[in-house]
Amino acid sequence: MFESAELGHTLAKTAFERQLPRLRKGLIDAQFDLLQDAPASVVILIHGMDGAGKGDTINTLNSWMDARHILTIGIDGPTDEEQLHAHMWRFWRLLPPKGKGALFAGSWYGETLSPRKKGKARLERTLERILRFERMLAQEGVLVLKFWLHLSKAQQRARFKALERSKKTRWRVTKLDWKHHARYDAFHAQAEHVLRATDAPHAPWVVVDGNDARYRNFTVAKTILQAVTARLKQNTNSKTAEVLPPVAIAPTRDTALLDHLVLAQHLPRGEYDQELERYQGKLNQLSREAKFRNISVVAVMEGVDAAGKGGAIRRITAALDARIYRVVPTAAPTDEERAHPYLWRFWRHAPQCGQVVIFDRSWYGRVLVERVEGFASNAEWLRAYGEINDFEEELAEGGAIIAKYWLQIGHGEQLERFSAREKTGYKKYKITPDDWRNRAKWDDYQRAVCDMIDHTSTQLAPWVLVEAENKYYARIKILKDLCERIEGKL
Amino acid sequence: MFESAELGHTLAKTAFERQLPRLRKGLIDAQFDLLQDAPASVVILIHGMDGAGKGDTINTLNSWMDARHILTIGIDGPTDEEQLHAHMWRFWRLLPPKGKGALFAGSWYGETLSPRKKGKARLERTLERILRFERMLAQEGVLVLKFWLHLSKAQQRARFKALERSKKTRWRVTKLDWKHHARYDAFHAQAEHVLRATDAPHAPWVVVDGNDARYRNFTVAKTILQAVTARLKQNTNSKTAEVLPPVAIAPTRDTALLDHLVLAQHLPRGEYDQELERYQGKLNQLSREAKFRNISVVAVMEGVDAAGKGGAIRRITAALDARIYRVVPTAAPTDEERAHPYLWRFWRHAPQCGQVVIFDRSWYGRVLVERVEGFASNAEWLRAYGEINDFEEELAEGGAIIAKYWLQIGHGEQLERFSAREKTGYKKYKITPDDWRNRAKWDDYQRAVCDMIDHTSTQLAPWVLVEAENKYYARIKILKDLCERIEGKL
Repeated sequence: MFESAELGHTLAKTAFERQLPRLRKGLIDAQFDLLQDAPASVVILIHGMDGAGKGDTINTLNSWMDARHILTIGIDGPTDEEQLHAHMWRFWRLLPPKGKGALFAGSWYGETLSPRKKGKARLERTLERILRFERMLAQEGVLVLKFWLHLSKAQQRARFKALERSKKTRWRVTKLDWKHHARYDAFHAQAEHVLRATDAPHAPWVVVDGNDARYRNFTVAKTILQAVTARLKQNTNSKTAEVLPPVAIAPTRDTALLDHLVLAQHLPRGEYDQELERYQGKLNQLSREAKFRNISVVAVMEGVDAAGKGGAIRRITAALDARIYRVVPTAAPTDEERAHPYLWRFWRHAPQCGQVVIFDRSWYGRVLVERVEGFASNAEWLRAYGEINDFEEELAEGGAIIAKYWLQIGHGEQLERFSAREKTGYKKYKITPDDWRNRAKWDDYQRAVCDMIDHTSTQLAPWVLVEAENKYYARIKILKDLCERIEGKL
Repeated sequence: MFESAELGHTLAKTAFERQLPRLRKGLIDAQFDLLQDAPASVVILIHGMDGAGKGDTINTLNSWMDARHILTIGIDGPTDEEQLHAHMWRFWRLLPPKGKGALFAGSWYGETLSPRKKGKARLERTLERILRFERMLAQEGVLVLKFWLHLSKAQQRARFKALERSKKTRWRVTKLDWKHHARYDAFHAQAEHVLRATDAPHAPWVVVDGNDARYRNFTVAKTILQAVTARLKQNTNSKTAEVLPPVAIAPTRDTALLDHLVLAQHLPRGEYDQELERYQGKLNQLSREAKFRNISVVAVMEGVDAAGKGGAIRRITAALDARIYRVVPTAAPTDEERAHPYLWRFWRHAPQCGQVVIFDRSWYGRVLVERVEGFASNAEWLRAYGEINDFEEELAEGGAIIAKYWLQIGHGEQLERFSAREKTGYKKYKITPDDWRNRAKWDDYQRAVCDMIDHTSTQLAPWVLVEAENKYYARIKILKDLCERIEGKL
């Protein structure tokens, strides 16, 4: 969920200053249009890690927009009067009317974002209610946008240290901040749980890297502008719709997550042979342990065309007894599969305990090829993130290890591999017109991949990005990770 | 939630036999149309109290429909194979393909419907997941219908006794049944919680009185027919809709709940004066207690026009210090109110602790006048039930007593009162053309009232039906109930 936000995105000053005037004009125009047509009100929540710049973002948004039409609301402990009322009263009375907006620093999420040991039933009920509340808001014409400004543990530490170095900002870092920092992992896990449970197409969480102020503020503002613009358009087109379709928020995703990878790793043949023997042996031994019969493995192989999924799969299966594994290639659905809900065809192949199922491509097709090629509607692929997370959670609760690998090679490397395949007789069948078509949409696919990882990399089922230009390196990375995941669970 | 189902509905044999051929033909035709167009699959869950006739209903449905296209699925403890898979695997593999149906005796609700002391967090998470699962099904084109066959405690006891009297059926009543019967209240409360949490327009719970086999089976079958017919129509009209609107299920609601009332109760003037003094005194004393400052009262007065709401309200307020109560008349919303989500204008008047707020008409307008007059769309009033329940739950959790009174008079009595008002100079203003218009739609309103009570009478916020042809009786019943509710909470 937070992978992309922990990379340390930056926006150079020159680029920022070049793009800012247009963004600010867009924001003001959108505010004006919203006020004129008043089809909706806008509720923006700003949450995030300590030190991720929540206050700075709110101040900046206020300076970029017309503050008369967007109210900033700081949520602190309830006032005396608020305490005498039902919990939600204070939020209801702060809701903006149609045509206007509100910027919530803190919100009804309140305490849900703090890690806790007790009161888990209460937390779950609160999250349920929040879900229903936000759905109601959306159905009543409120555009709900929720931002999570993120910092990795190292970034947070660096940020606090930097603030402490200057006399002017030293006071901003409190003992409580450092106390929270020490419990960073618990906060991280709690945030992931809450964001997962309350992420919905009609009230999405947008996770933004909080490390660089220019990048953070620009991204938040641009996302707001995109969402409001989409909402304004929607209204003129579908005045009669009883149920509003969700706003498709495609934040200004860069592909930094993939661009960041050093694709050509080093691993010479000799070393590879040794490592391969080592990890295949290990995998075989793990799969024979008595405890292995109480768990199962769901391995998902996804990647750029020609990145070497097949080769990697064969290195896994070679280490396993044929009776305990299955490789499930994902092709076009059969008629029977088409007559069932989307995930049915993958549930069919869910492993029982003691088994390994390797999916050669998978349910992620919906948010990759089906999204990019338009086979799935916006509503369909947008809700697929949540459905996929639910699916994987069910499998994990049933004892499965969910191991997901994305094999990445560069645009140039792909061309070389395509050409090589076309020249080699027995590999020719591996190149189809589809491959060339996908290649032509490289950038769209790469963006879809980054969105996918942002939405579906969870603690239970994390994505592993595999630098795959060196096949040896890729195979070993996958085998090693798989062994570690299984070992951790046994 | 179960009020209407506990009345002991019956369907006379003659009426049943007269209507059955048409119903059966309708079911078979609908099955055929469903198979031809295959726009959806149908998943029907049958749950209910022990002894409420789940098995009989399923057998009957099977005999009335073409069993080749509707599979009956009994859910017992998981098989060995199922136990080796993730929990939901067994339900996924049983989902019918488009064009077909499945009748689940037992389902993914499984253990959630048994009362429990431990594992509440787990229960809430399970309910959350069920909600998401059923939403996904609906979005993937599955029509989900959930029936709760109900019996009151006395009905259940009578049923078990009757079974035990005959040698042929004696074996059907087990020790476990009687053990459950002893814990009836806990099962009742658990069922209400689960049904409330998982009732949604796209996967509604339909509560059916299980006491009379003919009524029960006929009602379930008719509801299925209506829902499938509505779904088939929907599909031809809105092929392009990305989000399917919810199916408006209006089960064959009779108005038995209201018809059952003995409207003309007896209470002579002399007795009334005594009782009035007694309960007004009591109410005043309760409102002065120190603990009263920790709670609040939300009283809702709804009723047929001219049923005497105003008079009843005045008898309450006369007993209270003017500083602690407010009467909020509900008129057409202001511009400002219209610019906010529907419930905003009622949240504004939510009481703080120590206060009494009496709503003269209320948020129930949405499911009464707005529904009947078409001011609210189907989608709007259907989702209002859940929103209202959430609203009242929030208030109750904040310390409020929610006391809701429905004042009922007969059709003839209303006419007399209207005429009397028109003849009395100072009461003339009380009769408007709206009143006559509403009167013309008497039956529609009565049905809407019964639906409202079925969906929104909960343990936290029960409806009290007030027989109001004798005003004295009505006022005392309300005052007495209010005193008891407050006393119970202090």
